[in-house]
Amino acid sequence: MIIVLKPNCTVEQLKHFTDGLTHDYNVKVNTWVGTQSTVLGLIGDTSVIDIDYIAAQDFVESVKRVQEPYKKANRKFHPDDTVIELPGGQRIGGGTLSIIAGPCSVETEEQICEVADRVKAAGAQFLRGGAFKPRTSPYAFQGLKAEGIELLREARKKTGLPIVTEIMSAAHLPLFEDVDIIQVGARNMQNFELLKELGKIRKPILLKRGLSSTIEELLMSAEYIMAGGNEQVILCERGIRTYETYTRNTLDISAVPILKRLSHLPVVVDPSHASGIAWLVEPLAMAAVAAGADGLIIEVHNNPAKALSDGAQSLTPDQFDRVAKRVFQAASLLHAEG
Amino acid sequence: MIIVLKPNCTVEQLKHFTDGLTHDYNVKVNTWVGTQSTVLGLIGDTSVIDIDYIAAQDFVESVKRVQEPYKKANRKFHPDDTVIELPGGQRIGGGTLSIIAGPCSVETEEQICEVADRVKAAGAQFLRGGAFKPRTSPYAFQGLKAEGIELLREARKKTGLPIVTEIMSAAHLPLFEDVDIIQVGARNMQNFELLKELGKIRKPILLKRGLSSTIEELLMSAEYIMAGGNEQVILCERGIRTYETYTRNTLDISAVPILKRLSHLPVVVDPSHASGIAWLVEPLAMAAVAAGADGLIIEVHNNPAKALSDGAQSLTPDQFDRVAKRVFQAASLLHAEG
Amino acid sequence: MIIVLKPNCTVEQLKHFTDGLTHDYNVKVNTWVGTQSTVLGLIGDTSVIDIDYIAAQDFVESVKRVQEPYKKANRKFHPDDTVIELPGGQRIGGGTLSIIAGPCSVETEEQICEVADRVKAAGAQFLRGGAFKPRTSPYAFQGLKAEGIELLREARKKTGLPIVTEIMSAAHLPLFEDVDIIQVGARNMQNFELLKELGKIRKPILLKRGLSSTIEELLMSAEYIMAGGNEQVILCERGIRTYETYTRNTLDISAVPILKRLSHLPVVVDPSHASGIAWLVEPLAMAAVAAGADGLIIEVHNNPAKALSDGAQSLTPDQFDRVAKRVFQAASLLHAEG
Amino acid sequence: MIIVLKPNCTVEQLKHFTDGLTHDYNVKVNTWVGTQSTVLGLIGDTSVIDIDYIAAQDFVESVKRVQEPYKKANRKFHPDDTVIELPGGQRIGGGTLSIIAGPCSVETEEQICEVADRVKAAGAQFLRGGAFKPRTSPYAFQGLKAEGIELLREARKKTGLPIVTEIMSAAHLPLFEDVDIIQVGARNMQNFELLKELGKIRKPILLKRGLSSTIEELLMSAEYIMAGGNEQVILCERGIRTYETYTRNTLDISAVPILKRLSHLPVVVDPSHASGIAWLVEPLAMAAVAAGADGLIIEVHNNPAKALSDGAQSLTPDQFDRVAKRVFQAASLLHAEG
Repeated sequence: MIIVLKPNCTVEQLKHFTDGLTHDYNVKVNTWVGTQSTVLGLIGDTSVIDIDYIAAQDFVESVKRVQEPYKKANRKFHPDDTVIELPGGQRIGGGTLSIIAGPCSVETEEQICEVADRVKAAGAQFLRGGAFKPRTSPYAFQGLKAEGIELLREARKKTGLPIVTEIMSAAHLPLFEDVDIIQVGARNMQNFELLKELGKIRKPILLKRGLSSTIEELLMSAEYIMAGGNEQVILCERGIRTYETYTRNTLDISAVPILKRLSHLPVVVDPSHASGIAWLVEPLAMAAVAAGADGLIIEVHNNPAKALSDGAQSLTPDQFDRVAKRVFQAASLLHAEG
Repeated sequence: MIIVLKPNCTVEQLKHFTDGLTHDYNVKVNTWVGTQSTVLGLIGDTSVIDIDYIAAQDFVESVKRVQEPYKKANRKFHPDDTVIELPGGQRIGGGTLSIIAGPCSVETEEQICEVADRVKAAGAQFLRGGAFKPRTSPYAFQGLKAEGIELLREARKKTGLPIVTEIMSAAHLPLFEDVDIIQVGARNMQNFELLKELGKIRKPILLKRGLSSTIEELLMSAEYIMAGGNEQVILCERGIRTYETYTRNTLDISAVPILKRLSHLPVVVDPSHASGIAWLVEPLAMAAVAAGADGLIIEVHNNPAKALSDGAQSLTPDQFDRVAKRVFQAASLLHAEG
Repeated sequence: MIIVLKPNCTVEQLKHFTDGLTHDYNVKVNTWVGTQSTVLGLIGDTSVIDIDYIAAQDFVESVKRVQEPYKKANRKFHPDDTVIELPGGQRIGGGTLSIIAGPCSVETEEQICEVADRVKAAGAQFLRGGAFKPRTSPYAFQGLKAEGIELLREARKKTGLPIVTEIMSAAHLPLFEDVDIIQVGARNMQNFELLKELGKIRKPILLKRGLSSTIEELLMSAEYIMAGGNEQVILCERGIRTYETYTRNTLDISAVPILKRLSHLPVVVDPSHASGIAWLVEPLAMAAVAAGADGLIIEVHNNPAKALSDGAQSLTPDQFDRVAKRVFQAASLLHAEG
Repeated sequence: MIIVLKPNCTVEQLKHFTDGLTHDYNVKVNTWVGTQSTVLGLIGDTSVIDIDYIAAQDFVESVKRVQEPYKKANRKFHPDDTVIELPGGQRIGGGTLSIIAGPCSVETEEQICEVADRVKAAGAQFLRGGAFKPRTSPYAFQGLKAEGIELLREARKKTGLPIVTEIMSAAHLPLFEDVDIIQVGARNMQNFELLKELGKIRKPILLKRGLSSTIEELLMSAEYIMAGGNEQVILCERGIRTYETYTRNTLDISAVPILKRLSHLPVVVDPSHASGIAWLVEPLAMAAVAAGADGLIIEVHNNPAKALSDGAQSLTPDQFDRVAKRVFQAASLLHAEG
């Protein structure tokens, strides 16, 4: 951590400040006195220092971190890729392309089982489906809740596909005991109380990037879960909010290689939410694979026009067949030549 | 709601679609057939129609709402200003300027009581202080929690100021029974499970706008609380995330008059979080008052350099004296000539 | 164009307004009177109607275009892909991957010729190099100007690569007579006077998307050039400005398939400026190819550490060899299976 | 300037690099060697150092400016406020509130003279009116050009109000010889060739902030003009592009006090373009005055519904009367108590 002091900082203030830093945080402080300003360099584990506290001192001009503020999610301290492996052998990370597919909302047993059959046939290894639905309007369909999870379990029984579904409150955790991967939605990425509870369980968490969260904030939210002891976190880029209105969000494709470099955690991409438009799912899925994503999460509905939510961005099973075929081929071709 | 159909929509599809709309939503559908496209106009209460469902039909080119999707928060159906009034007579809304002031975090009894004394002397009518703190890092100070609320109650006992503090999980609600106004932070603005629980209680809720939430989304989150039966919602503009890096966030000053026009709910502004810089609090507070805000929420700490959080944006009590004096004068002068 | 009127619009106003529209723009106006509001549907060529003028009427609630406001750039009126073909046979668009490579700034004859040799050997079909440099600071290197163009011509003579270089003012056009493709930089995308002048010449224009321009605005700027008679426009996505600070800009990968769908013009991607970081060029270039880009524009410098501008995002020739190899392979593999 | 080196930087590289910096830029380099990284501190005039060049060195981890990169616009080197004073005695800056008002486009002599009369009567000291109009569509009205400037001169003759109008190309400069203040529009804020030409003349320049330009970039563009010798620059905040769609742009009210602190140049606010909505002009103008703006630029049209551009955001003369009365009162009241 590099701290630039204002010219008016007194020697006494400086001594008091550096003594405090040394004592409170067990860091070593190097002082370099220039003609215009004095610069402090902190050595040691500065990830525990609150940068706001430093910036609040009225003799501090600016502060700059050199170390990243996350540790468990940091590739520097964990060079090897984390691979999420389920009891049934399904994996996310580690060089194969994983696809999580299914409807935005679980609606009926018939619907979820039909979609599960079709996406399995196309090669998807995981089934997604929303039981608890975060909706902007209190008047919109809020999901089947416990019944939705029950239907997902039915579909798993029939197809063998592990199930991925979103949690909206730690109070619902008992309902998720038999869920294979718990998803945290973009709007809850900084619901820290929820993250803390998820740190206490031992189940993979699919953590979606918030609508306007930075890459570092996503990693800090992963750190919340991991700090609690649950190190099975899957990061998900699902588009960020920008001024562009043609798409619902803007897929930040750069986040894929950046997350892979900064962290050892697997990275999946959600082209359905990133664009909000069904015909864009294929080119964005292809781009994600080419950029190095470990997996994709794609909305598929047996009858998008009748979907209770997100129909405009859902693929039909036939459309999904084509997308899955193309992305698996691309993954294998690009991998072979990469 | 205006729906533009694609040229390839068949008469059969059209009939089936309009019959469904009429039946499912009890709206009247007017069809206008042009040479290039067909346009449907829906009459009735369209706020319950899921716009995504409409957009998902493959023969739909685009959809546009004419009605706002919120009702209880809508000034059209509730022309008079909502005024929040506490049992002690303190008010937010209705023509006077309300100031909520206090430290980011409650730290000690001495600290909170000293700050409470000082902000009361300067004219603040409400005391704020964080007991549960949403922090980006799991390693940062997370607040005194239950003890923090206890200390706030102490400060209230000594000063008579009603207390405002943030809730991070519905599971903590029992601890908030004796809190006067419950705050929902920006990161929880779309924590819909929390909003639903807050709709069940009868206590004013200070709802902060999310970092990248639109004005309409803020009103929809207020609608969540109000739909549950709790109509005492205070809206708070606290800066949005943009590309500009000089300030922590960008205060969207336009949101003040817009929210006042679209909704009957009171609107307060948080210049401390909007800027993240203490010296900007005064000009932004003045701007908020001039733009028509009903109140301000300002961070004040007896020793910002020792604050456990947000020190860089906290005013000292002396600085707050000056800001409070200026904004109360401005409110009275501008009101007199307005 | 769909116009929703306010409830207070009088019959007289309505008649006067629709008469005016019919007369001034030669459109047919269909009026549909609902119980809550009246809606007008305009039929005919509405691209010439100023939407601001409509919105300015105080009895107008809102306006919505159904037709796109661009014509010559619109795929609807020109279904086949435009392919830019130079006299030497080099092409952009039409199914092959084109690479434009070279240094940010032309610095010396030795530098530009060495880079030209290397990028040609790696398969690039075009040489880029800045002679006029738009720099944020007036104290930064502004380019070699006329001499820079002279050096590019030298490099072309030696390698046969057509040259692409940026123009910053129509006053410099005489210097660009022998340039093969003229680039318009992001900061000049809405320099309409420059666009008009470029519409008068007959030379391909590489038009970069502005830092915060929408996809529609990019197409409208292309329309400016095409309306003048010069239909050889190449669209370039080069990253947009968002709140994310890890990268210099955020590559809007979705823009590639969207531009290809809305327009017949070729689309190239600039991964160097989009990220500002050399190691991100490869994954972003791969993503661009997978998403359907017709070409790439990549910064390559024989000695990035000594580059007079943009060194941090430039590849060495060796690094470029690898990127070119991968993207050409990807283009051929994905094309084969696509 | 603080430069953090990567751990792999060799002693030889370090020596070569610091020797080069000392020699090329006449700065003194202080080296501080820590256990994890080496930090360099540069002393002297670092504003001429290209930060990109530093960042491009492969042994550099990160660079951070301590000094601002602008000098002539910097309040540190010019503590007193710059006051723009015209030959007729009209001033911008220095404690009085200046209002520039008039139509978006000059349309007819009758129109511009009527508006000029009315805004003068309401207290405006300057007349604005567009002769050259930057329009997104090539098919929209592009302004009366030379004739528009002629009509502005007529209006000035009749009212005595100095005229402010926008330039779009340095090629048009001869037409602007008799214009009192030349405006640079948001889309040309980084048209550096134009800025350089404006640096050569001796006439006040009203420089509008770009749609997605940072505060620092605005100051750097002012620096371009000032570096050429023309130090009469007026900065204008006119709204920035964000994800919020209710307003055309988002007024960055914080920019007002920030620009006043960083620079000595006067700052005006354009509430008309910032919002794009006539009824928002009053509250935003009030906020701008309260935040410390030196002036306002407001669109007024004698018949907004017939305006050839920007009608939706133009005030009628009657509406302007009210706004002017309120803002002048506010300026005098807030100044008296400030």
